[in-house]
Amino acid sequence: MTAAYKRVALIGLGLIASSMAHAMRQFGLADEIVGHAKSAESRKIALEIGLCERVYATAAEAVQGADLVVLCVPVGAMGEIAAEIGPHLAAGATVTDVGSVKGAVVEAVAPHMPQGVHFIPGHPIAGTEHSGPRSGFATLFRNRWWLLTPLDGADRDAVARLRGLCEGMGANVDEMDVAHHDLVLAVTSHTPHLIAYTMVGVAEHMRRVSNSEVIKYSAGGFRDLTRIAASDPVMWRDVFLTNKDAVLDILGRFTEELFVLQRAIRMGDGEHLHAYFTRTRAIRRGIIEAGQDTSAPDFGRVPLGGGEGKT
Amino acid sequence: MTAAYKRVALIGLGLIASSMAHAMRQFGLADEIVGHAKSAESRKIALEIGLCERVYATAAEAVQGADLVVLCVPVGAMGEIAAEIGPHLAAGATVTDVGSVKGAVVEAVAPHMPQGVHFIPGHPIAGTEHSGPRSGFATLFRNRWWLLTPLDGADRDAVARLRGLCEGMGANVDEMDVAHHDLVLAVTSHTPHLIAYTMVGVAEHMRRVSNSEVIKYSAGGFRDLTRIAASDPVMWRDVFLTNKDAVLDILGRFTEELFVLQRAIRMGDGEHLHAYFTRTRAIRRGIIEAGQDTSAPDFGRVPLGGGEGKT
Repeated sequence: MTAAYKRVALIGLGLIASSMAHAMRQFGLADEIVGHAKSAESRKIALEIGLCERVYATAAEAVQGADLVVLCVPVGAMGEIAAEIGPHLAAGATVTDVGSVKGAVVEAVAPHMPQGVHFIPGHPIAGTEHSGPRSGFATLFRNRWWLLTPLDGADRDAVARLRGLCEGMGANVDEMDVAHHDLVLAVTSHTPHLIAYTMVGVAEHMRRVSNSEVIKYSAGGFRDLTRIAASDPVMWRDVFLTNKDAVLDILGRFTEELFVLQRAIRMGDGEHLHAYFTRTRAIRRGIIEAGQDTSAPDFGRVPLGGGEGKT
Repeated sequence: MTAAYKRVALIGLGLIASSMAHAMRQFGLADEIVGHAKSAESRKIALEIGLCERVYATAAEAVQGADLVVLCVPVGAMGEIAAEIGPHLAAGATVTDVGSVKGAVVEAVAPHMPQGVHFIPGHPIAGTEHSGPRSGFATLFRNRWWLLTPLDGADRDAVARLRGLCEGMGANVDEMDVAHHDLVLAVTSHTPHLIAYTMVGVAEHMRRVSNSEVIKYSAGGFRDLTRIAASDPVMWRDVFLTNKDAVLDILGRFTEELFVLQRAIRMGDGEHLHAYFTRTRAIRRGIIEAGQDTSAPDFGRVPLGGGEGKT
């Protein structure tokens, strides 16, 4: 496969952009990678560790002459960036994004895209709890799904080319309608993050259970929630503000379900609890069979030394 | 260190018992390990893979002559087992348990313990989502906390000896009051499991989002919850039925917190969300510094091949 693009401009240099840079380089998918980040420190690091050949202080400069522009900024910052780069985009260029919400991105970005530029919204379902230009790695997208949500009348050649790039980085690609994407992600990502944040918040606010106890005895399940509740706060603020309707819909269902289980606990209805807990096991098996998680116990965590007490 | 106990009887041969068997053997902590499981299949496996020197079809037989008896059955089964073994316990023996709830276990077990037997309730905060006699491994307790909740007037020598066994298997030991244990665990383990089960249940019930979509696109956070929602249903049913008050208390706080965040989303209060999501990061850092989780991104999961699509 020859390089998918001649010049890729990464706008925003966090976890996804830096992972794309590593992957595109490793798999020979871009002749040239340039970038922009708002923070001078991030631009400096990107050059130091060789993410980009060149970095620019403004997005407008970075996109010039690029045949692929990837918007890797928090969802709430997409509109302003789109307005800035619109007049500087090369004719025939493809613009995509990696935002976790698609409806709001389309609304914010599409109006600024000039005639002859292909705007193809996208979302790689991959990430870690780390952020910033040093957090990326080439295998982040391997066997993960990359959703593209092309708009009506999208140029099929441009979509195919972008799909080739994603697949070249190891991802599986599906196409999906914008609204359906936002609902699916509200279920599989946004609401799970919110309840994880909430549970960690509850633990932090308790007076009768100290923070040090919460931390020491976290291996009983709590620590799993703290990982996803350690994700980037700006990114997640924007997700909830911009996918409000779908998240509120799923939260409503979640609360209903929780109340039914809570009532079963209160009434001592063991049969209901047992049946519920048995059904949910099947979903875990499905995820492992689909190659979306490891079957190794405890995610394959290695027991750790260090920390308090004896090791 | 010489062997902590001459004969250890494991009652119930699931994840915790089988891990104890491996660990006691590896670290030379018991001269002899015998066991009982209700299921003939589990007893057969335990002999086959060498967990126990001998297995017995009844708990009453298994405990005879043992200087340590470990009750490793679901919390709801403890009372019946205690009644059965009571008359057969050796004078001076220690009886402990590994249940995730302590108040209900004390209530169910203590009345059946004869004079001269040391009943010291315990709880290793360690586990995986797997269960059964094949799921154990010797390092399960390494650097994990093992809580002991000795009753008033407990024999300090017997407690010290049990502590030595737990530490010998790599655990850190803390002593705690029974009621406080149940509250702490409601925060760090029981409620997190319930909300994970709930979220997985919500995903399963959606009609507009198919199960196959939930599974395919689970890497955005959902899959983390499915691991803890794949734990043993009987064990968890019993936890919720027997730690009802503490769990309902924490669930009430959880719902309050969730409603406050839900309202912030509805009102578009980005500042509130950002501040909340920033605070919860600190707890994650604390857990990593305390050696209770790995700092490797994504729990150190190895990217997987296989599954749907290209690899």
